Amino acid sequence: MLTMQDALLALTRYWTERGCVVVQPHNTEVGAGTLNPATVLRVLGPEPWRVSYVEPSVRPDDARYGENPNRLQTHTQFQVILKPDPGNPQELYLGSLEALGIDVRAHDVRFVEDNWASPALGAWGLGWEVWLDGLEITQFTYFQQAGGMSLDPVSVEITYGIERIMMSLQGVDHFKDIAYGPGISYGEAFGQAEYEMSRYYLDDADVEANKRLFEEYAAEARRMLDARLPVPAHNYVLKCSHAFNVLDARGAISTTERARAFGRMRGLAREVAQLWAARREELGHPLGLVEAPAAAVLPKTFADVAESSTLLFEIGTEELPPAEVTRTVEAVGKAVADKLGATRLAHGAVEVHGTPRRIVVLAPDVAPREPDAEKTVRGPRVSAAFEADGNPTKAVQGFARGQGVDVDALGRVTENGVEHVALVRTDPGRGAVEVLSGLLGEVVAELRAEKNMKWNDPKLSFTRPIRWLLALLGSTPVPVAVSSLAAEPKTRVHRTASTPVVDVPTADDYLEFLAGHGIDASAEVRKAAIVARAEELAASVGGVVDFEGVLDEVTNLVERPTPLLGSFEERYLELPAQILTTVMRKHQRYLPVRAQDGSLLPHFVAVANGEVDQDLVRAGNEGVLRARYEDAAFFWRADLRTPLEDMKAGLEKLTFADKLGSMADRAGRIAALAGRLAAVVSPEGVGAVDDTLARAGALAKFDLGSQMVIELSSLAGVMAREYAERAGETPEVARALWEMELPRSAGDALPSSTPGALLSLADRFDLLAGLFGIGANPTGSSDPFGLRRAALGAVSVLRAFPELKNITLTKALSLAAQEVGVQGLEVSAEALEVAREFTVRRYEQQLLDAGHDHRFVNAVLPLADAPAVADTTLAELTGLAGDADFAGLVAALQRVRRIVPADTVGEYDPQVLVEPAEVALHKALADVPAGVTGLAAFVAAASGLTGPVNTFFDEVLVMAEDPDVKRARLGLLAAIRDLAAPVLDWQALGTALGQG
Amino acid sequence: MLTMQDALLALTRYWTERGCVVVQPHNTEVGAGTLNPATVLRVLGPEPWRVSYVEPSVRPDDARYGENPNRLQTHTQFQVILKPDPGNPQELYLGSLEALGIDVRAHDVRFVEDNWASPALGAWGLGWEVWLDGLEITQFTYFQQAGGMSLDPVSVEITYGIERIMMSLQGVDHFKDIAYGPGISYGEAFGQAEYEMSRYYLDDADVEANKRLFEEYAAEARRMLDARLPVPAHNYVLKCSHAFNVLDARGAISTTERARAFGRMRGLAREVAQLWAARREELGHPLGLVEAPAAAVLPKTFADVAESSTLLFEIGTEELPPAEVTRTVEAVGKAVADKLGATRLAHGAVEVHGTPRRIVVLAPDVAPREPDAEKTVRGPRVSAAFEADGNPTKAVQGFARGQGVDVDALGRVTENGVEHVALVRTDPGRGAVEVLSGLLGEVVAELRAEKNMKWNDPKLSFTRPIRWLLALLGSTPVPVAVSSLAAEPKTRVHRTASTPVVDVPTADDYLEFLAGHGIDASAEVRKAAIVARAEELAASVGGVVDFEGVLDEVTNLVERPTPLLGSFEERYLELPAQILTTVMRKHQRYLPVRAQDGSLLPHFVAVANGEVDQDLVRAGNEGVLRARYEDAAFFWRADLRTPLEDMKAGLEKLTFADKLGSMADRAGRIAALAGRLAAVVSPEGVGAVDDTLARAGALAKFDLGSQMVIELSSLAGVMAREYAERAGETPEVARALWEMELPRSAGDALPSSTPGALLSLADRFDLLAGLFGIGANPTGSSDPFGLRRAALGAVSVLRAFPELKNITLTKALSLAAQEVGVQGLEVSAEALEVAREFTVRRYEQQLLDAGHDHRFVNAVLPLADAPAVADTTLAELTGLAGDADFAGLVAALQRVRRIVPADTVGEYDPQVLVEPAEVALHKALADVPAGVTGLAAFVAAASGLTGPVNTFFDEVLVMAEDPDVKRARLGLLAAIRDLAAPVLDWQALGTALGQG
Repeated sequence: MLTMQDALLALTRYWTERGCVVVQPHNTEVGAGTLNPATVLRVLGPEPWRVSYVEPSVRPDDARYGENPNRLQTHTQFQVILKPDPGNPQELYLGSLEALGIDVRAHDVRFVEDNWASPALGAWGLGWEVWLDGLEITQFTYFQQAGGMSLDPVSVEITYGIERIMMSLQGVDHFKDIAYGPGISYGEAFGQAEYEMSRYYLDDADVEANKRLFEEYAAEARRMLDARLPVPAHNYVLKCSHAFNVLDARGAISTTERARAFGRMRGLAREVAQLWAARREELGHPLGLVEAPAAAVLPKTFADVAESSTLLFEIGTEELPPAEVTRTVEAVGKAVADKLGATRLAHGAVEVHGTPRRIVVLAPDVAPREPDAEKTVRGPRVSAAFEADGNPTKAVQGFARGQGVDVDALGRVTENGVEHVALVRTDPGRGAVEVLSGLLGEVVAELRAEKNMKWNDPKLSFTRPIRWLLALLGSTPVPVAVSSLAAEPKTRVHRTASTPVVDVPTADDYLEFLAGHGIDASAEVRKAAIVARAEELAASVGGVVDFEGVLDEVTNLVERPTPLLGSFEERYLELPAQILTTVMRKHQRYLPVRAQDGSLLPHFVAVANGEVDQDLVRAGNEGVLRARYEDAAFFWRADLRTPLEDMKAGLEKLTFADKLGSMADRAGRIAALAGRLAAVVSPEGVGAVDDTLARAGALAKFDLGSQMVIELSSLAGVMAREYAERAGETPEVARALWEMELPRSAGDALPSSTPGALLSLADRFDLLAGLFGIGANPTGSSDPFGLRRAALGAVSVLRAFPELKNITLTKALSLAAQEVGVQGLEVSAEALEVAREFTVRRYEQQLLDAGHDHRFVNAVLPLADAPAVADTTLAELTGLAGDADFAGLVAALQRVRRIVPADTVGEYDPQVLVEPAEVALHKALADVPAGVTGLAAFVAAASGLTGPVNTFFDEVLVMAEDPDVKRARLGLLAAIRDLAAPVLDWQALGTALGQG
Repeated sequence: MLTMQDALLALTRYWTERGCVVVQPHNTEVGAGTLNPATVLRVLGPEPWRVSYVEPSVRPDDARYGENPNRLQTHTQFQVILKPDPGNPQELYLGSLEALGIDVRAHDVRFVEDNWASPALGAWGLGWEVWLDGLEITQFTYFQQAGGMSLDPVSVEITYGIERIMMSLQGVDHFKDIAYGPGISYGEAFGQAEYEMSRYYLDDADVEANKRLFEEYAAEARRMLDARLPVPAHNYVLKCSHAFNVLDARGAISTTERARAFGRMRGLAREVAQLWAARREELGHPLGLVEAPAAAVLPKTFADVAESSTLLFEIGTEELPPAEVTRTVEAVGKAVADKLGATRLAHGAVEVHGTPRRIVVLAPDVAPREPDAEKTVRGPRVSAAFEADGNPTKAVQGFARGQGVDVDALGRVTENGVEHVALVRTDPGRGAVEVLSGLLGEVVAELRAEKNMKWNDPKLSFTRPIRWLLALLGSTPVPVAVSSLAAEPKTRVHRTASTPVVDVPTADDYLEFLAGHGIDASAEVRKAAIVARAEELAASVGGVVDFEGVLDEVTNLVERPTPLLGSFEERYLELPAQILTTVMRKHQRYLPVRAQDGSLLPHFVAVANGEVDQDLVRAGNEGVLRARYEDAAFFWRADLRTPLEDMKAGLEKLTFADKLGSMADRAGRIAALAGRLAAVVSPEGVGAVDDTLARAGALAKFDLGSQMVIELSSLAGVMAREYAERAGETPEVARALWEMELPRSAGDALPSSTPGALLSLADRFDLLAGLFGIGANPTGSSDPFGLRRAALGAVSVLRAFPELKNITLTKALSLAAQEVGVQGLEVSAEALEVAREFTVRRYEQQLLDAGHDHRFVNAVLPLADAPAVADTTLAELTGLAGDADFAGLVAALQRVRRIVPADTVGEYDPQVLVEPAEVALHKALADVPAGVTGLAAFVAAASGLTGPVNTFFDEVLVMAEDPDVKRARLGLLAAIRDLAAPVLDWQALGTALGQG
C-alpha cells in the first residue's frame, strides 16, 4: 500500500527528475500552495522557474473538528509550477499520476473546465479540475495574471489535492483512515491537531486580538513596501490574510468589512507583485530570460495537386470548455467559409465538427487551383490620352510605362459614359495549397473565445492552448504556419493510446479514421450515443434517464462517450430529490435515473471518455457520489434534529453588512416589509394569505443556519421548504419560504404564490434600500452584493404579478428604507432615487434583451415604476405599431404637445369656442370617456380625436388675437394633452416614430 | 553531484525506510526543528513516535544579508526523532551519512560532547555534535526533559545542518554556491529572500509593532491553555518566541527584558507540555505505549574455574565526554577494588583503562574460589548456660535450637573476660564467577557521572548510554545482568570496521587484542602517541607543538589517535595570534604549531580517530579552519577600517538593562567611576596614570561594537587591545582596555597595571551597584548577570593591588551608586549594603576555598571592606597561630573585653589608680606606641600588656566600691580594648580559639 508520505516522495521525485526545484512549505500559514512565494512571486517577470513542493494549506473555514470525512482545516497540496509552459504539461501531469501507481489507461482521467481567480491577489488563470473517475484530484491552471500584472511568460500551475488522491487510491471513506506513514494513520498523526485547530478557528480565537493582528500585519506590510522589500512585505500580506480567514471562520466579518479587507489586501498584494518584478529587473533577472519558441516558417514554394480533393484541417487543442466546443465549431465554420468565399477556389460545402480536443474542418471537392482572372486597369480618359494628331500624350505614356507595357498594348473601357484607355491584365489563379496555407493560418490566428488566455506561444491567444495543426488536401500536406505552430500530417488521439500521435495519410474518410482511433468528432454522434446507451442502461434497472441540464455539457466533455450505470445506496433516497440531483448534476455531471413516476431511482449514468476499465471507473464514481451523499446525509440528519427556531437563532451569528446588522436583522426586516407590501395591495388584509405570510416571515431565511445550506449554499430556499414541511409547517408556508429565494438567477423560476412573491420582493427591496443606503453601490463590473440580480429579480416578480401593481418601485423602496430606519440607519432620499433609477435601468435592459423595439421601450419607461403596467402598455404599443389610426393619433397628439406651453392648465371655457373646428374638437373630447387606463383602451377611446385635432389645426389659429379665445383654445389642447399624458411617453414615442 | 534537494530526498527516504513518519515543516516561524510539535510535543508521554522532517529554521540574529559564507537567517535542518531510543541510534545515523554518499570509513566521523539545554522550553538533553573531518554537521541528543517534564521514554533527536553538509560534500566555500536543485544554486533560489529578511530582522522590523505582537501572542497562548488546547497554544508560544527573536535581532531587548520574556515563554511552554501530556492521557494514548526492553536474567548456576585467571570486564558505552573518561576510569577502579576487597576472593592489582567508548577493567590472578571461612556465633554466658547440676538451662537449649544443633555441639569462647557458649560455623567460599557476577553488576548499576541521563534502559543512568558488557575470567564468561544488559564474550571495535562486533576468546592479553583492532585502551598510550607524532609532524615544518589546553581532551576523544598535519594560508597570520589559537583550540581542538620563537606557523595538528583517508580528512579539516579564519579575517578587516569611535558609537544600540540604559551608558559610568576611584587612592592625581585612565575610559568597551566580538564574544578585551594598538593608541591604553575585562573567570589572569585595575574595578562595581540597585539580585542557582563573578573579580583585583586599599567596598559601591544616580536611578542604601555583604561573602568563600582556617577567616572578616588589609591580617594571624605569647595576648584581651560594658569610654584619670597592678597596667599601656596598624605590629607592640593585664585581674577588684576608682579601672580596660579593636575581630577569634 502506497502511504501518503510515499506518495509525496514519489511526486517530489517525479518532478525533480523533470527539472523542478524542490522548496519547503512556507513558514507562515497560507491558504493554498499558490501563496507560497515560490509560486505567487516567481510566476512574475521573464525568468524561467520550475518548482514543486508540498504545502499544508490552512483554511480555517473548512474546520470541522475532524468530523467531516472530506473537509480539513489543514489539507495537503502538492504544488508544481512550470514556467514557461513546457508545451506538454498535461502529458507530464499524466506521467505523475503513473508515478503514483495510477493506471491512466484503466481509469477515466478528465480535464474539466475550471477557471481560477483570486481577486484578493489580483490573479486569475484558465484551466481545469482534473477528475479521476469523477473525483476532483487536481487543479490545473494556466496562470495569466498575478498581482494585477499580466504574466509573460505564463506559468502552468498544477495543484494536487493529496488527501483526496490518497482516499481514492487507498479506498477509504474518511481522511482519518488514510494510511499516512509506516504503521500510522492520518488521524493518528494529525487528528488531535485537526480537532484543536478547529476549536481555535471556529470557537476560541479571540476576535479582537485577531483584528488587531490584522492591523499590525497590514501596517508592517505597508512599511516593507515603502522600504522596497517585497519578501517580508509578502509574508505580512500572508499573515494579514490568515488573520482575516480566522476572523471569517469565527463569523466576525460582515460583508462590508470583507469588501474593505479584500480591497486592502488586494492593494498590498499588487504592490508586492509590482515591487518584486521591479526588484528582479534591478537585479538583472538572475535566473535569465525565457526564450520563446521559434516561429514556424512556410516553405518558399507550394506543392501542386492534380485534381479536386478533400480539405482536412484540424486544430488540436487542450480540453476546451464544453460551451466553447460548440461556439468554436460555428466560428471556425464561418471563418473558413468566408475566407474560402473570398478566393476563387472552387470547393464543396464546408463541414466542421468539434470535440474537447479538436476542431475538424472538412471541405470536399476543393479545386486544385483558382482559375485565372482578368483585371482591367483604367488609364487616362481617351480625350486626354491622345493629341489631336493621335499621338499619345505624356499622360498615357506615363500610364503605359507605369504598367510596363507599350502604349500600343492599351485597350479602352467606358465607365460612367466616359471612355478611358485601359490595360486588361490576367491575374493567374494560385494553387490550392498556397491559397489554403494562408487562409487556414489566418483562421487560427484569429480564433477567439469568450475568455482567452496565453500559453507558451508568443502570439496566439485562445480559450485553451492550441497544440497542433493538421492540414491535408487529399493526401498532400498543406503547410500552415501560425506563430510557433506548423501543420503536420499527424494528429493526436487519446493520450492513453499506445501510439498517442498518429500519421494521417489522407483527408478522405477522416471521420472514420478518427473513429477507428476511438474518437467521434461529431457532437451529434456523441450525443446520440450517450442518449441511446444511457437509455439502455436506465432501462436495465427499469428506469428512464433525466437528461435535463447536463447532456450538452457531457457531450462536449468526451471524445467518445462511454456511459456507465452507477448505483448508490437506497438509503440516500431519504434525502430530498433536489439535493441528490443537485449533487449529481452540478458537482458530478451525472444523469439521474428516474422511475416511470418521475421519482429518483438509486442509479445514475456517468459518461466516461473512451475505453476505460468500466468496473474500476464505475466503482470510483460510485465512491465519489457516496462520499458526497454521506456528507449531505450527515447534514440532513443533523438538521432534522434541529428545531427551525434553533436554526433561525443561528442567523444572529451571521454578520450581514456594516450598519445593516446580522442576517437575523435582515430576516426581521424582510418579514416586516413583506407585511407592509401586502397592506399596500390590500389594506384590509387577505386572511389566509396574511397568516402564511406572517409565519413564513417569522421563519424567513432560517435555513441559512442549517448545516446543509452552510455546505451547499445553492440549496438555500430548497432546504427551507424541505425542513419546514418536515417540521409540520403548512405547505403554503413551506412554499413561501422557498419562493422567497426566487428567482436566483436570470431565467430562474419565479414565485407562484402571493406570499412567496411578497417575501421575494421584500428580500430584494431590503437589499437595494439597505446597500444603496450605505453607499455600497455597484461600480463598473463590480457588484459584490448582487444588487443587479436583486433588482432584476424584483422587476421580474412585479411583472409576473400584475395584481401587485400598486407596489411601485418608489413605494417599495420607501417602505424598505423605513424598515432599515427602524434599525437605526437613515437612508437618504437621494440614495433611494438612485436605487429606483438603478432598478428601472435593469427593467429597461430586460426589455431590450427580450428584443423589444428600443423606441417603444423608451416610450413606456415613464410607467416603469410599476413594471407590470409598463409591460401591458408596451404590449399594446407593439400591437399598435403598424396601425395607421394609431400613427395618426400619435401625430395628432404630437401636434398638440408641440404647441401647448408646459405650464398651460387643461381647462377652458367651452362658451368661448365658436369656430366649427374648435367646437367639433371640444365635442370629440367630451365624447372620450373619463378614466380610461391602458394604452389600447385609450387608443380605442381617443382615436376619434385624430380627425378633429387635424381639422382644428388646419382651420383655426390657436394664437388668436383675443386673449380669451387664445386661452380657451390652448386650454382645450392642454386638456387633450393631459388626457393622454398618463398613458405613455408620447414625446419619446413621437420622437422615435420620426414625428419629433 | 548530489544537489541539496537530492540530499533532503535521500535522507527522507532513508528514515522512511526505518519507520519514520514524514511530516512537513511547521507553518509558523520556528528557530529550530525541535520546536516543531512533531518533536517538542511528541517526545512527551509514553507513546512511541518516529518522525523525520525538513525544518527551515529562522534565526533573526544570524541574519547577515547573505554576505557571511556560513551564516543565514534561515538555515535548513533535517530533524529525526526516534522514540524510544532504538538501542543503536548512532549506527543508524552513520547509515544515513552513507545514504548521502559519505564514505564513513574514509572520513573522520566523531561524536564530540555537546549538551543541549533550552531554558525557554524547560528542556535539556545530553549528546554530541557530530564532526565530519572537524566540521560540525549534526546535533545528536538524548532528549531528557521537555516543558520541565522528565521524558520517559527518552527520545533520540538527530538534527542535521544541511547547508554545512552540502558545502562540505560539494566543496564550496559559500552557502550561495551550493548546488541546490537542477541547474540552480542556493543563492539563486534563496539569495534575495536571505537579503530581504536580513534587512527586516536587522534594520527594518518595527520594534513597537513586534512588541505588541509579542503581547498579543502571549495572550492568545494563555487563553488557549485555559481552553485546554495545547496545539494552538503551542503555535502562539512559537509566534511569541519569533517576535522576541525579531526584537532581539533589532537590539531592542535589554537584559532584564530578556529575563522577563524568557520567564514568560518558559512558563507558557511548560504549561503547553503538561497540558499536551494530560490530553494524550485523556485520549488514552492513541499511539499505544512503548514497551521497555526485557530485563536480562542470570543463570541459576555459575561455572567453576580451575585455576587463577585474569579478570576482564569491559563496560561499553557511546562516546563519553573526555572528562568523564578519566573520572569513570578512577571510579570504576575504586569500585571494583573496594568490592573485591569486601570479598574473600584473592586477586592481583586492579587496573583500569578508558577510551570514549569503553572502560576496561583487568585484574590478574583472580583465585578460582573464595576460601571457606569460620564464623563463631556467641551464645549465653556459661554461667547462665548450665544449672548447678550441669544440665543445660532453657537459655542454652533455646540457643542450640535456634542454631539447629544439639547442645553437645556447642563450644566456648571468652569475650571481655567472660566465657560464653558458642557455635563455630564454616562459611563456604563462593566460586569466583558467582562472586564477580554480582559484584560487577553492582559496579555498573552504581555508575554515575557529573551529569547523568536515561536511554532505552528502564533502570540505568549514566553520562551516556551503556551499550554492552564484556566479562571474562580467563576464558570463562562471567554472567553479568544489569537491568536489560547482559554480558557477552564480545566487544565492539570501530563502527567502521568490517566486523564491528568481535568475539573475545580470553581475558589474557586483552589490551593487545584491542590494539590489534586499532584501539588503544590506555589514555597514556594514546597521549604519548599524540605527543610523539604531533612533534614529528611539527618538526617536519620546522615547528613545535603548543599542547596547551587541549591535549587531555583530544586524548579522550579517540580510541586510537591519528595526528594529521594541516596547514592554512599564511595570510591569516596577519590576524592576532589569540584569534587564531582561540579558533583552533576552542572550536576545533587543534594543536597550534609554533616557530622556535613562539610565533605561530601556518600549521596545526588535528587528531583523527583510527584509520582514515588522511588526505581526505586533512583537506576537510583545513577547509573547516579556512572557513572559520575567513570569517574572522572578514571581521578583522572590516573592524580595522572602522574608527574606534565608530565602534564605540555602536554601543548606543546595545541595550544593557532596564533603567540602566545602553551599553554606552554603562561604559560612560565605568570611565567616570574609574576616575573617582583613582582620586580615592591619590586625590592629587598621578600624571601619566591619569592620562591613560582617561583615554582608556573614553574608549571603554568599544570593542563590543566590533564585528569580531559580536561574533566571538570571548575575545572581548583581546580585540580592544588589538584594535587600540593598531589605531595608534599608546601601549598603556591598549593594555588598560584589555585588563579592564580581567578576570573573566575564576583563576583567570588579573590586571597588572593600575589603570587596568581601576577600570576592572569600575566595571565590576558598576555592575554590582546597578543591578542590586534595580533589584536584580542573584537567587538560588540563578545569576543571569554574573554578579557572583563580578564580585569575585572585584575582590581579586583589590587583593592583588594592596596599594589601592583605600578603595573599600563601601566606598566603591557608594561612588558607583552615585554614577548610576547621575543617570537617574537612585540606588537605596539597603541595596548597597546587600551588595557589599554579597561581595564580602564572595571574599569569605574565596578564602575558605583557598584552605584558610575558617576561624581565622571569621576573625578578619570585619576588615574585609578592604580585602588586601584583611589578607595581610589573615596572613599574620595564620603566622601567629602557634605562638604562645599571641595566645596569651588574645586571652588577656578577651578577659578585658568580657568585663568592660560596651558603652564604656576608653578614658580614665591615671591619678585615681593607686594599686601597683593597676599602675603597672597603666604604664604598660602607655608604652604601646599609638597608631600601630596591622596585626603583627600590634602583637609586637602590645604583647607587653599580657602580663600586666593578667596581674591586674588577679590582684585588683575592678568593681571597686569607690565609684571614681571603678570608673578609672573600667576606663583603663576600655582603653586597652579600643587599642586592639581595629586590628581584627578579637571576639570571633577568641570564640574560635575556645576562649569565648
